[in-house]
This record gives sequence, structure tokens and C-alpha cells, in this order.
Amino acid sequence: MVCVAHLREKPELTNPVLIEGLPGIGFVANIAVLHLIRELKANRFAEIYCSSFQDFAVTVEKGQTRHPVNELYYHKGKAGERDLIILYGNTQALTTTGQYELCGRILDISKELGCRFVITLGGFKREQEVNTPKLYVAATDKETVSKLLNVGAEIIKGQIFGVAGLLVGIGRLRGFRGFCLLAETLGLYPDSVASRKVLKVICDMLDLEVNLDSLDETVEVTRNLLENFGLIERPLMKKGKKESQFRWFV
Amino acid sequence: MVCVAHLREKPELTNPVLIEGLPGIGFVANIAVLHLIRELKANRFAEIYCSSFQDFAVTVEKGQTRHPVNELYYHKGKAGERDLIILYGNTQALTTTGQYELCGRILDISKELGCRFVITLGGFKREQEVNTPKLYVAATDKETVSKLLNVGAEIIKGQIFGVAGLLVGIGRLRGFRGFCLLAETLGLYPDSVASRKVLKVICDMLDLEVNLDSLDETVEVTRNLLENFGLIERPLMKKGKKESQFRWFV
Amino acid sequence: MVCVAHLREKPELTNPVLIEGLPGIGFVANIAVLHLIRELKANRFAEIYCSSFQDFAVTVEKGQTRHPVNELYYHKGKAGERDLIILYGNTQALTTTGQYELCGRILDISKELGCRFVITLGGFKREQEVNTPKLYVAATDKETVSKLLNVGAEIIKGQIFGVAGLLVGIGRLRGFRGFCLLAETLGLYPDSVASRKVLKVICDMLDLEVNLDSLDETVEVTRNLLENFGLIERPLMKKGKKESQFRWFV
Amino acid sequence: MVCVAHLREKPELTNPVLIEGLPGIGFVANIAVLHLIRELKANRFAEIYCSSFQDFAVTVEKGQTRHPVNELYYHKGKAGERDLIILYGNTQALTTTGQYELCGRILDISKELGCRFVITLGGFKREQEVNTPKLYVAATDKETVSKLLNVGAEIIKGQIFGVAGLLVGIGRLRGFRGFCLLAETLGLYPDSVASRKVLKVICDMLDLEVNLDSLDETVEVTRNLLENFGLIERPLMKKGKKESQFRWFV
Repeated sequence: MVCVAHLREKPELTNPVLIEGLPGIGFVANIAVLHLIRELKANRFAEIYCSSFQDFAVTVEKGQTRHPVNELYYHKGKAGERDLIILYGNTQALTTTGQYELCGRILDISKELGCRFVITLGGFKREQEVNTPKLYVAATDKETVSKLLNVGAEIIKGQIFGVAGLLVGIGRLRGFRGFCLLAETLGLYPDSVASRKVLKVICDMLDLEVNLDSLDETVEVTRNLLENFGLIERPLMKKGKKESQFRWFV
Repeated sequence: MVCVAHLREKPELTNPVLIEGLPGIGFVANIAVLHLIRELKANRFAEIYCSSFQDFAVTVEKGQTRHPVNELYYHKGKAGERDLIILYGNTQALTTTGQYELCGRILDISKELGCRFVITLGGFKREQEVNTPKLYVAATDKETVSKLLNVGAEIIKGQIFGVAGLLVGIGRLRGFRGFCLLAETLGLYPDSVASRKVLKVICDMLDLEVNLDSLDETVEVTRNLLENFGLIERPLMKKGKKESQFRWFV
Repeated sequence: MVCVAHLREKPELTNPVLIEGLPGIGFVANIAVLHLIRELKANRFAEIYCSSFQDFAVTVEKGQTRHPVNELYYHKGKAGERDLIILYGNTQALTTTGQYELCGRILDISKELGCRFVITLGGFKREQEVNTPKLYVAATDKETVSKLLNVGAEIIKGQIFGVAGLLVGIGRLRGFRGFCLLAETLGLYPDSVASRKVLKVICDMLDLEVNLDSLDETVEVTRNLLENFGLIERPLMKKGKKESQFRWFV
Repeated sequence: MVCVAHLREKPELTNPVLIEGLPGIGFVANIAVLHLIRELKANRFAEIYCSSFQDFAVTVEKGQTRHPVNELYYHKGKAGERDLIILYGNTQALTTTGQYELCGRILDISKELGCRFVITLGGFKREQEVNTPKLYVAATDKETVSKLLNVGAEIIKGQIFGVAGLLVGIGRLRGFRGFCLLAETLGLYPDSVASRKVLKVICDMLDLEVNLDSLDETVEVTRNLLENFGLIERPLMKKGKKESQFRWFV
């Protein structure tokens, strides 16, 4: 199977931008993109799962199961806004090969829908707390780098791992332009400050009308989902948690 | 090849339920499902093997070889009983990817036969012996959770690994409903008490007429098979065993 | 690619037996089968290589390269002899998945040529030197076990790893009968005593006229090939060897 | 996806030779081949990427992203020169399986373009610095070995890992002739002396008019690319580098 994509509908979009928001350092992208989905009331149109995701199910409060999955949403822009394809999910692939397969599939679907520009987000890990996180950028081409330098970002030096790097990297080989935007973060918990920072830049660039007042609510939703997936500690239930950390696969 | 399924026949079933019983903690599912097969005289209609199973053959008493394999049986319900597809076997897949491939294939076959509901069973590992094992549940939807809470199960908190989690998790993405039912167990040996507990709930729910008197016989059969596969210790032949634990693959 | 098979010709065979002889403990199978090929002047008709073989080339004395490969030979039996398909090679696959793919491919080709019986050979590792190695057997069915018990073999208890186990194990699932025959060996070097022992049984069973006088020559050829592949130590050139054990892959 | 090849054009070539130049010990091949591309003004006609490459993007000075990739160039020979297919890139595959897939794909494309001869280059690692590096050779056939012995190369004893070994090894199974030519090197940095040595032999053999005066420039270009990819240390910026060596994939 490798990667299976269930498409519920095939949206009609005009020159859409793909925005990535999978879990990563500080969950900067994950929060930012969930906030976009909530505020824009974006429509889920595809679910993707891969054999390189974790092989477990997870339970939420009322005993219902959730599965490692990636989802695609669309937003048809109003009055000058850009059309969007939004990649959201609770996991990246566990293996290098899986990451390639996942990104390949996402770019396939996006290209089919007319998309030629990809934005990936993330956290730039720091050892020390920073009050005003700086932004860092890398892009497929000089023009795009310039635009981001103009809004105050600095250039990323080094390697960009994971989906944030691959979508821009493979994308370039497939004729996409795009950039990766990172905000400084300690990276130890869902970081609303860093998320707000990248989100603001994205909204300005794409003329999106998004209210950031309720961002902290989105952070809470993210924190809850992550706890269920064991991606972050559940601070107030440590005793209860021990018990639930079992594996019963032989 | 990935996963190869040999179908001996394509049974005509009405709204069948898939019940999973592969080896896992305490072999709770493995025993329960073998007992169903024996008591209902279910018919084997498919054998599945995957490149992610162990790469060995195993010998049974008289020198005959057995191979890592999963099998599907069917039971056409009599007088009010639900039709069943029963998944039995001596192994799960060894890798995450393999587990996805295996579960994907099983759901494919089940869906083709009209199945939209999946039940997975297992043991919930405890450090201390429990006299009356409790039951735990997670399900694809609220209604199904409720039904199981009504028969005394509690909600699973955390992650459900292996085929027990995946069949329900991927199943949900493919339009299946279902649940995972676990019984507390030390998990160190084939646990007839825990098996009896889950089996009783399943039989009541599906109106299956199954005599549980001979369950201990089924436990013995299971213990024998597992010893051959090296999944559990052969208590009375330790000296003889050393000798037979060789690998001759370079 | 997974496994690529180059067929040079498609031989016309009558009810042929597949005999496996890949490298393994004591190189028992490898020697036995090479001797069959040499003495019967069997014809190479296929070369198989897999992405799960080692990723290197090897040089032989005059600077020519050799590659990890499996080969199939055929022998059309004369006067009462059984037709043969002989599997020879300088490697097994490196991964579990690879072993399945390799064996699946070999059984595909064999079945296509009318083969329904598979013999695998090997060494049964002992810690102490044995003067007269005993034979051990496991088979797909009782009748075949009996035949081998009649020639003095004992029953294998436990797990048979690698191609020797898989070909018989998967073979059974695909409608092949067959057996695995092992001879006791220290397993530290190409063992001509153990090889002679299994070869004698095979030749008797299949009415093959094979002269075993020159078996030690075959052992020498095997030793040479193995040294080139780094599978065994090159005893007389240790100084020279250090230098050649380099890797230049980054 | 495994390996994806984007062909920009399908060049018309006459009996071309494939020359491999991926990163390896001392970057001997990488430098030599890049120099051929620069001096011959070879045309890039294909880009290949595989799911077994690293899953990251890399940034170059001005913030632009580069991706792990292999590229194919062609050169139509002038006046007696041989037509060439040149394999260049910034990575080999990370896994054994990946190396097979990559080499298989490259041989497919080359065969399709009429190529039946493959040359791979590399460094032969030495512990001590050598002033005048010796050349070592292995080849698919005696005639080719002889030709290289005539220009002063010695025979490689042992195993040739990576693409340098596989292209010649698998190539032979697919009907290619060819050789692997290595020059002694410390292997710790891009080695212009070793590169010059192999390049000179190749140019003589294929009657290529290539000026080697500017080879040191090519070495500098190579060093720069490798630093961006983290394959070699960036000597003058160690302080700055610490900061950029982050991973932000969860």
C-alpha cells in the first residue's frame, strides 16, 4: 500500500498555495496550520495514511480511536485572498523512505489541483529561551528568498530535515517554487509565540484575513491531541499515565 | 510479493463481522479465536503470508514443517447468529510497514465479502496477578463504546499497538466500525481466564452458541503450537531444547 | 526491481525436483550442489539478483569482477534419473523481506517449469567435532518424512532459518512437497564430510549417477569463491588481506 | 516512488560510455566527473531522486535550497572523441536496496541510449599519505583488465562497495562491459592529486580533449557543495556551524 489517499472530493482551485503543518519542533507548524483551518473554516477533502506511520491506534477521552493520519483541507479565498491547500496531521512518516513517499503523494495531489507553490513551516531549535523569536528562511529561488528577507527573516544555514525540507526540496525538482519558514523556539512544548510569528507573515503574504486572538485555544487543542498520541507529556495525570503506557504486541 | 493471499473459495456471507485472533500478550485473542473455530467448525477459506513474517520454517512433532501464516475462516450463522470472518494465525508481521500491509490486505478481503465491522481482541498487561480480570475497550464510535461499557468494560487510555490497534484504526479510515476489547493478564503464558472473559462478551454480543467447557483444551493446543514456534518456553524439555535452538543461516 | 531474473532459455523438463544449494552453515549445501552441477554438467539457464543482496562487486584473481548472484541450472535425467532444477549461488538475501522475495521468485520459475517437489540442504551446527555426522530431516508431509527416516535421518526439532526453511515452508503453501536435509557440522569451514553425507542420500533417492571421488576438488573451488567474497578467511594470505579489506563507499 | 527520473530530453548518442562520478572516498570520482562536465560543457538531460536519499533539503549561500539528487549529462564527442553519459550528483543511496534501485535505473536509461560500457571511478583508501598515488583496476572481462594494466594500474583485490562496484557488477549481468578505476588517497578531503590521476587515464582512453589546468577550481567547487551538504567540515566557520547543525524533525 505504501501511501493510501482517500479523496472525498476534488476541489476547483485557482493557483492554490500548499501550506504544510505537520508535527515538528515546538509544533510551530502544527498549531499555525490548525489555526488557519479553524479560522478559515477550511474543508477537509483528503485523508492520507502510509505504511511508514506508527502501527498503533490511539484513544481519545470517550474511548474512541484515532489513527496516525495526514489530512488535506482547501480554502477558496475571498476577495483577494489566495486559494489554499492545507496539510495537517498528527504525524510525519517514521522512515526516510516513508517521508519521500508521503511528500511525493502530497505533491502529486497538489499539482493535480493546479498548485505550483509550497510553503513549509517549523521551529528553529534554540537551547536558550528567546523573548522575541527571529524568523529564518530558505527558498527555491532568489526572488522568494528576497521577499522573506524583506519581512525580516534571516537565511537558514544548514540542513532542513523532515517534511519541511522535503516538500520544498522535491518540490523544486518537480517544478514547484516555495519556501521554508522557521521561527526560533525552545521546542519543548507547543509554542504559541513562535507559531503566531510565522502565521502573521503567512497571512500578510497571502492576504488572508485571520484573527489571531484565539490562537491560544488552538494551542490547547493541539496540546490535547499530542498528549493522546504520546508525543508530549500529560503533565497533570502522570500517575494515571504510567498505567496506560503499555504495549501488547508480542 | 509483500503479502500473498491464497483464496480457496469465496464464501457468500451476510453482513459478517471480522474477529481478529493473532498472537499477542497472554495469547488472549489467539486462544479465544481458535476456540471459536473449533466449536463453530468454521471453514478455512484463505491463507495469507507476507515478506514481513519470520524467515523460517518450524517443525512439529512428527517432523512436518509449519510456516508463519495467517488464516481466514468463515462461519455462516445459524438461527440468529451473526456471520463471521475469523482471522487466526501463528504470527503478526515483524515490521511496522508489514503490519500495515497485512491489515490492509485483510480489510480488502473482508470488505469484498461485505464486512463493515471489525472486532479485535487482546490482553492488557498487568505487573500483578489479577483474580478477576477487568475488560477494557476502545471503539470507532460512541455508540459502540457505550455498548461495551454496558457489559462492564472500561475505557482504554493510551495506544493500542499491533494488529489489534491497526485493524480498528485503518478500518475506521476505510469505513469500518468496530472495537478493540482487552482483558487484564500477566501476559506470561497462554491465559485461559482472560480469554474466557473476552470470549464470553463476544459470544453474547453476536448471539453465538459456543460451549466454553473445553476452553482449556484449546489453551493446550495453543501452548503446543507456540512452543514449536519458539514463542513460549517448552517447560519440560529444557535440556532437549538447547540443542534444537540452532540457526544455520550464514 | 526487488528481484531480477534473466532467463537464457526455458528448458523442457519432466516433473523436475528443485535442489537448493546456497551458502549456509558449513557450506554443506553449496558444495553438494556445485558438485552436482560439475558432475552432471548441468546447464545454467537463469541468473537472479535482488536489491537485498550485498551492494558490492568482488574481484577474482585476474582482476575480473564477480557479483552477488543466484543461478538456476537444469539437468535432463538419463535412464531413470529424475530431471533437476539446481539452485546455486554465492549469497542468500540479507533481509527477511529479501529472503521471501528471492524464494518466491525461485518457486515461481520452478512451478512454471513443472516442478512440485523441493529439496533443501544444509548444515546442523554442533559445538563439538563429530566423526560421523548424523542426518536430520523435516518435510512437508508424513510420507516424505518416513522416506528420510528410512535412510537413517532423525527429525529436526525447532526452527529452520533462511532459504532452506523458506523454500520448503512457502513451497508447502504453494502446493509443493519437499524436505530439508541437514548434516551435523562444526560449520566453521567448507565441510566435505557433511556435504558427502547429504549428497549420497540425494543421489540415491533421485537415482542420480554422480561420482563423489572428486568432491574434495569441489570443496577447493568453493573455498576459493568464498574467500573472494569475504565469507571465509583466506588462511595463507593474512598479511596481504589486511590491505584488501577496504571499503570506499562514503 | 523508489527512484524518479525526470528526463528533459532524450539525446541521440553513438555507442556512448557511462562514466560514474558520485561522492565517495576522497571525492575522487566526484571531482573528476565535475571537471569533465565543466570542460566539455556537457548537457544535463536527466535528474534522478530516490526515496533512499537523505530526507532533507540543504541551503546554499543565498538561502536557496538544494536537494539530494543525481544528474545525467551527455557529451557528443568531437573528432574521434567517444560519446559520453556522465553520472554526477551529491549523494549515493543510503541503503543497500536503494543502491540497487538507483544503479538499476541508471543502467536502464543508459542502455536505452545505446550504452554498453560503464566506467566507475573512486578512491582507494590509504592510512599513510602517498606522493604519487597508484591506480587500481577491476573489470568485467580480461581484455579490459589488460588495457588498464598497460597504463600502469594494478589489480584490486577484495570488495568494491557502493555505486562504483554495483554499476560494474550489475552491469555485467545486464550485458555491459566496463571497469572500476581507483586511485590511492588518504580520503579525508577532496583529493585533487588522485582525481587528476584517474582523469588523465580516462581522457587518454576515450580520446577526450580535456584541459586539466583548472582542476583545482573544480576541487574548490566540489568542496563548497560538500560543505553545504555536511559531507565535509567547513574549516573556517566552525563557530558559525555549531548553530546551523540543528534537526527540527520530531
